[in-house]
Amino acid sequence: MKIKVIVTLKNGVLDPQGKAIQQTLNGMGHNNVNEIRQGKYFEVEINEKDEKKAKLKVEEMCKQLLANLVIEDYKIV
Amino acid sequence: MKIKVIVTLKNGVLDPQGKAIQQTLNGMGHNNVNEIRQGKYFEVEINEKDEKKAKLKVEEMCKQLLANLVIEDYKIV
Repeated sequence: MKIKVIVTLKNGVLDPQGKAIQQTLNGMGHNNVNEIRQGKYFEVEINEKDEKKAKLKVEEMCKQLLANLVIEDYKIV
Repeated sequence: MKIKVIVTLKNGVLDPQGKAIQQTLNGMGHNNVNEIRQGKYFEVEINEKDEKKAKLKVEEMCKQLLANLVIEDYKIV
């Protein structure tokens, strides 16, 4: 079963990478872009048929490794 | 309006970063993880009220900058 996770920076945490992309887009003529924030996306292929159990396992992985909970939030989608 | 984009590696393109995460998870005891593929996630805050137009603009940005279409696919969500 494939579980998808999105990890984003918490609100208020500076995102210099996103800022750089935004400035590049502005420079390319996309002047209507006000802000870009970049996050990470993971597809976890897990050997578990029960969706609820699989999501619980992936949530554990997020807490342990995939997300830094001090500055990041995760969302299982 | 905020438009969300997921950029993933195309099928068949090697993902050494995902592989490293998978091996780390296996080493931490998550033996049921078969594969991890990592992608990118963007939240684009665009000054455009019409959702259809905003998505078209963001699609253009994906093609120009956010995704490398040789090895990556994008999905506007």
